[in-house]
Amino acid sequence: MNVSVIAIGDELLIGQVVDTNSGDIARMLQPHGWSVNDVQVVGDSSEAILTAIRRGFEISDVVLTTGGLGPTKDDITKSVLCRFFGGELREDVSVLENVKEVVAKRGLKLNDLTATQAVVPSSCRVIQNKVGTAPLMWFEQNGKILVSMPGVPFETRQMFQDAVLPDLLKRFKSNVAIEHRTILVTGWSESQLAMEISDWENALPSYIHLAYLPKPGLIRLRLDGVYHDKEFLNEELDKYKSQLIARLAEDVLCDEDYTLQEILLQYLNKLNLTVATAESCTGGNIAHLITSVAGSSSVFMGSVVAYSNDVKHRLLSVKQETLDEYGAVSIPTVEEMAKGVCDIVKTDCGIVTSGIAGPGGGTIDKPVGMVCIAVKSPGGIVSDTFYFPGNRGRVIERASTMGLIMLIKHLKKGYGLR
Amino acid sequence: MNVSVIAIGDELLIGQVVDTNSGDIARMLQPHGWSVNDVQVVGDSSEAILTAIRRGFEISDVVLTTGGLGPTKDDITKSVLCRFFGGELREDVSVLENVKEVVAKRGLKLNDLTATQAVVPSSCRVIQNKVGTAPLMWFEQNGKILVSMPGVPFETRQMFQDAVLPDLLKRFKSNVAIEHRTILVTGWSESQLAMEISDWENALPSYIHLAYLPKPGLIRLRLDGVYHDKEFLNEELDKYKSQLIARLAEDVLCDEDYTLQEILLQYLNKLNLTVATAESCTGGNIAHLITSVAGSSSVFMGSVVAYSNDVKHRLLSVKQETLDEYGAVSIPTVEEMAKGVCDIVKTDCGIVTSGIAGPGGGTIDKPVGMVCIAVKSPGGIVSDTFYFPGNRGRVIERASTMGLIMLIKHLKKGYGLR
Repeated sequence: MNVSVIAIGDELLIGQVVDTNSGDIARMLQPHGWSVNDVQVVGDSSEAILTAIRRGFEISDVVLTTGGLGPTKDDITKSVLCRFFGGELREDVSVLENVKEVVAKRGLKLNDLTATQAVVPSSCRVIQNKVGTAPLMWFEQNGKILVSMPGVPFETRQMFQDAVLPDLLKRFKSNVAIEHRTILVTGWSESQLAMEISDWENALPSYIHLAYLPKPGLIRLRLDGVYHDKEFLNEELDKYKSQLIARLAEDVLCDEDYTLQEILLQYLNKLNLTVATAESCTGGNIAHLITSVAGSSSVFMGSVVAYSNDVKHRLLSVKQETLDEYGAVSIPTVEEMAKGVCDIVKTDCGIVTSGIAGPGGGTIDKPVGMVCIAVKSPGGIVSDTFYFPGNRGRVIERASTMGLIMLIKHLKKGYGLR
Repeated sequence: MNVSVIAIGDELLIGQVVDTNSGDIARMLQPHGWSVNDVQVVGDSSEAILTAIRRGFEISDVVLTTGGLGPTKDDITKSVLCRFFGGELREDVSVLENVKEVVAKRGLKLNDLTATQAVVPSSCRVIQNKVGTAPLMWFEQNGKILVSMPGVPFETRQMFQDAVLPDLLKRFKSNVAIEHRTILVTGWSESQLAMEISDWENALPSYIHLAYLPKPGLIRLRLDGVYHDKEFLNEELDKYKSQLIARLAEDVLCDEDYTLQEILLQYLNKLNLTVATAESCTGGNIAHLITSVAGSSSVFMGSVVAYSNDVKHRLLSVKQETLDEYGAVSIPTVEEMAKGVCDIVKTDCGIVTSGIAGPGGGTIDKPVGMVCIAVKSPGGIVSDTFYFPGNRGRVIERASTMGLIMLIKHLKKGYGLR
């Protein structure tokens, strides 16, 4: 089953807010063999919303809208939907009760403006929003369905998963199996990798397609299979996945679709090892990535963000001579930082960065984008120097990614993990 | 002038990559009075791309596409554009030279697949991509313009700013002024604030519109003005902005459109103060936010991410009795952490968090979402306990935001800043 998504809101068109709802919806639909046909981002204009709905219904049986449901003047989605599907706007007592409950949970009192959230078109079936004040609305017309959802990402994520998706799956049954396999590969550019495996890719059966999903420093390879026989499809996907893993061997970082920080945490848990980070140019981003994963506290103890040389010297025991002779951005410095952070935080492993994130601070010898990275495990220290392209944000992102990759690879090699 | 954006790529529709290009483009267009009419996100399908181009040209004179230009099999945008605009695909020598240069800068050798990037439709004017291998293509038909740009965000950002936007501005001249004013407000929910200022908002002249742009913990209020007389419009906007600031007084965090971390860094620079963070539940995210700003090294010295109690005790000098009696998530602990981190990193100011980010670890007394935050300046320590709703990512985000807001407010008050 295919779905069209309409993301509504002037804030999206002016670039003040990024639409993450359509991607969240797509990821939740995918395991059920559903996919998103297209996404339309439109402003808070009734003409634009109406046109988008008509377009959505042209190519999809299900249209999902997000946003435009706030209580302030600029949010007009409700009245537009009422115009499209008929009926009248009226206060719904059950919605009002629900809004009161949600507001009370936040320790607030219901005000008149928020109370208008209880006004809904008579032509819809309401799905109560358990985590916000804007009700979800399910409309049907000529066998087509439109569900209007809030714009706040966590509200839409939770309510779509808990209430909308189950109702959609009940309503439409699929008889085609859609399955996926993903592996993570490092050390290749997209085009090099595509050439390397082109003979294999060209020989794939018609019901299996290979997708390249590159991110800085690593590539996700996803095998997408579509076939009426689910069991056969899964066997085939497993077979082709094994072939791909055998072929790319050492460069396969993971044979499932995990983030780098999830892979690292799995390894550390398995090996009963702990980790700390000592970050200069990445400024705490690696620690942030690791601690974004629930349960990370079992292996992650802490970090030192060492922006100044003084902190590198005093907290991480980098020798003053090392800083004087080689500078803060150097292999000797990051290696001493690696030892220092594992000592002071008392961990087995460490990830260390020091570099020039830019835009200022670069020299001919040490240009913007130059980053020294060291990783430490009980087996020893490994370090390297990189020259990352792009702006400050990109250098921080690439250095963080590379730090995680280096420790994963170091552990894989040291402990013979697969 | 209005623009339609088409973001192309299966990876966008399946939610593996979020489209940030359309927002970047909108933000760069806005100062010139241009805006984005709509954004269409479509997959790597020729039918979908052709339909999207036709739709774009229906409502806009300029269509900008991003993505679908990679050298691998699934990227088909170039051949679709050739079909739409006519001409034939052929190798362009100047593009090949440029691709070679870009690849060489990355320390790589040109391979056959990347070389195919030099094949472009004869119907376009090429704009050389200085930061990537996919050339930009400018097409014209019946007075309408389509520019095809890469999908990699930093490539599109830089090339749009440097090459595409100047050419568009040359081509179309605007005679309507569009101006904006933004202020940042804390301490209000969107609906409470809307009620508070509804009389003022309703009295705004027709050429000025107020937009609410809420983020967790703060609201951006943006006045959008459209008028033929630019000078008059700017005077009017300044007048209404002053009224709004006078009305919301203490709750105005900033009278320009900066991020919280930018505001904090401006204050610290002005006051000649330094800052460190000591983060438990935010796991380094506040340090990451601060160090994302270029030039932050002038006031940001470092941080301690203290996930384990051991690190809180040893590195940040939190007394064992405090941890035993009140627990890690408590006001006494965060206040001692604040003193500790300023001592060990040797800074004037500190931002400290300790809380239960979830999903595990909550108790009846200390539920998931409970976060204690302390901030320190030379004037003393301020602390508070918060109960943030939502999942782990949201708790981390809200606690980070609140930490920054608290130190900004603490400095504002202590130093009588405006």
